[in-house]
Amino acid sequence: MEGLRTVLDPEIGRSIVDLKMVRDIAIDDGRVNVKIALTVAHCPLAKTLQTDVENAVRKIEGVRSVKVETTTMTRKELEELKAMMHAGASPAAFQKSSSAVGPGIERLGKRGVRNIIAVMSGKGGVGKSFVTSMLASELRRRGYEVGVLDADLTGPSIAKVFGVTGKPYKGPSGGIMPIKTKTGIKVMSINLILEDPNMPVVWRGPIVNSVIRQLYWDVDWGDLHYLLVDLPPGTSDAPLTVFQSLPLDGVIIVSSPQDLASMIVTKAVNMAKKMNGPILGLVENMSYLDCPHCGKRIGLFGQPRGKNLAQGLGLPFLGAIPLDPIIAQMSDEGRIEDYSSPIITTIADELRIRATKQVEQLPHNLPIAWSVEPTP
Amino acid sequence: MEGLRTVLDPEIGRSIVDLKMVRDIAIDDGRVNVKIALTVAHCPLAKTLQTDVENAVRKIEGVRSVKVETTTMTRKELEELKAMMHAGASPAAFQKSSSAVGPGIERLGKRGVRNIIAVMSGKGGVGKSFVTSMLASELRRRGYEVGVLDADLTGPSIAKVFGVTGKPYKGPSGGIMPIKTKTGIKVMSINLILEDPNMPVVWRGPIVNSVIRQLYWDVDWGDLHYLLVDLPPGTSDAPLTVFQSLPLDGVIIVSSPQDLASMIVTKAVNMAKKMNGPILGLVENMSYLDCPHCGKRIGLFGQPRGKNLAQGLGLPFLGAIPLDPIIAQMSDEGRIEDYSSPIITTIADELRIRATKQVEQLPHNLPIAWSVEPTP
Repeated sequence: MEGLRTVLDPEIGRSIVDLKMVRDIAIDDGRVNVKIALTVAHCPLAKTLQTDVENAVRKIEGVRSVKVETTTMTRKELEELKAMMHAGASPAAFQKSSSAVGPGIERLGKRGVRNIIAVMSGKGGVGKSFVTSMLASELRRRGYEVGVLDADLTGPSIAKVFGVTGKPYKGPSGGIMPIKTKTGIKVMSINLILEDPNMPVVWRGPIVNSVIRQLYWDVDWGDLHYLLVDLPPGTSDAPLTVFQSLPLDGVIIVSSPQDLASMIVTKAVNMAKKMNGPILGLVENMSYLDCPHCGKRIGLFGQPRGKNLAQGLGLPFLGAIPLDPIIAQMSDEGRIEDYSSPIITTIADELRIRATKQVEQLPHNLPIAWSVEPTP
Repeated sequence: MEGLRTVLDPEIGRSIVDLKMVRDIAIDDGRVNVKIALTVAHCPLAKTLQTDVENAVRKIEGVRSVKVETTTMTRKELEELKAMMHAGASPAAFQKSSSAVGPGIERLGKRGVRNIIAVMSGKGGVGKSFVTSMLASELRRRGYEVGVLDADLTGPSIAKVFGVTGKPYKGPSGGIMPIKTKTGIKVMSINLILEDPNMPVVWRGPIVNSVIRQLYWDVDWGDLHYLLVDLPPGTSDAPLTVFQSLPLDGVIIVSSPQDLASMIVTKAVNMAKKMNGPILGLVENMSYLDCPHCGKRIGLFGQPRGKNLAQGLGLPFLGAIPLDPIIAQMSDEGRIEDYSSPIITTIADELRIRATKQVEQLPHNLPIAWSVEPTP
């Protein structure tokens, strides 16, 4: 048990012994059998954890072989653990900067946010907001605390696709409280602040930069596993500010299957590389359409080429998402959280694995993710 | 004949008498029959001209009725007219500003460009570049002198869709010479200037503004009937600079059939109204798709709603363009000039009529448009 104290849960960042995840240790003549209870069912990081446990046990003298089995915590166990963790440490408090955040370019802090992931494309209309909101919904479905920052001030879509309309208010901590979607995703978008969502913000760069910094820093995001940042198209002020000011942990690139899009997406990738943004991978959206009448496949914008594009740019390819007319409808109805597809699930899992691998383990006491698997 | 001297050709802006367009005047007891030769066959402005002639003749004492017939000039007659006009006045010379154009916001001059039309959307990926290049090709097909200024510095598509790659050079006048497409459209885009078209321009607003002003003012556009300006998405620096710095004659709004797009397009329309940009009308792109396999219609992004959107915004509706997979292919191959469709033709005609109505008649000696109707 002492030997396992050094093993951290890859998502929570604390010792699996403290988290009461070690359930059983059977030792028979140097052959060790360890049983670990995971906090999330079908955790894509289970493999990592198993390897870590195995390596830790092997270091102990006299061990001849190690076998690691996994199980999942019950809802009751999770509740107890959650209560214990919250009691043990006050959650990362919202520290309001002494003065309002200026339009500078110095990097802002992280507070209680573990992973900050920007969704970028360079090209407009390839579905950045769709990918952002789908990934947020999928991560939320797995039980994570998720936030979405809409950094597209002149074409904000996030409030609309989640169907949220309330006005953000100042919380007791002094920070602005984001609006919660029906599944509990915290959303902040300029369209929640504007009197009339049809009115444009006709702002030059310096104001755009200052507002993006405020939407991040003056908002009380609380403890989050993931904050997804939906970037506007282009490689000018808004993306530049996000790269310079936000402590990004990863960037997801969205493309569409057209030479023209590839060229512009390549520009965005080169910008991210220039700015040392850690790129997690590339998603191709609107890869194809299956005709709802005859079922035959239609290459709307040409042949899917996301895999080749990613390869050429030296990026992991996360997956190809087909165009589905229902998506536009659900976005318009503010019900994007109800949409799911196996491809999105796979991409969300890839994101979790890659993000966790890249991100240093923070000592924060994040709330534990809730498994939403049906409990018996 | 003297009475007709006040009637101007609505496209060339000079008296139809000077242009030798009045071919025959028959008078029989107060009943006047006038025959007018048009410079362009199927001129959508023929009706305007006929009315103008009728009104001018009616003013003459003793006239009881007027009948106006139209015919079209032969190629030979057009050549003679063109030669005469060129001999009569030197074409508007390129006047280089004494110093390089600064990043100010004062409005730049018009030189030899008659109509400057911006194509705008607010939303990315709805097909601004496609609409811009299609309209340019269609106007060129009618015989006009056409230029395209790609004001999207971070996502430039124009050079690619026209398949032009040359490097612009400094002409004898001191201005930068735009690159000509195979049908003779003059193109200027940041991608023609960059060493590597895959590299991004990571510029903040002030540089973006200055470069857009240069792409307009430091370029020797020569005499043009139409300069189309392809705007980037959003309502921030680049569109703001175009509205403030360029002497715009009209704005065309492009939307796509999604609530989400409508909201963002409405922002752009409100910006244009705020900036006193004269909006010529709204085009809906990607309205629907006819399945290439079974022929049935697919509402990709929802039901077409361009007409309602335009009505709600108090704008003329110019037409709905379906999504055609061949468009992406031809854009990728740089052959957009080879694409044509009856809908685009109608929209181009609408543009010509509305632009001419809104634009004051300039005294420039623009070259006469060539009819491209097959000559016998």
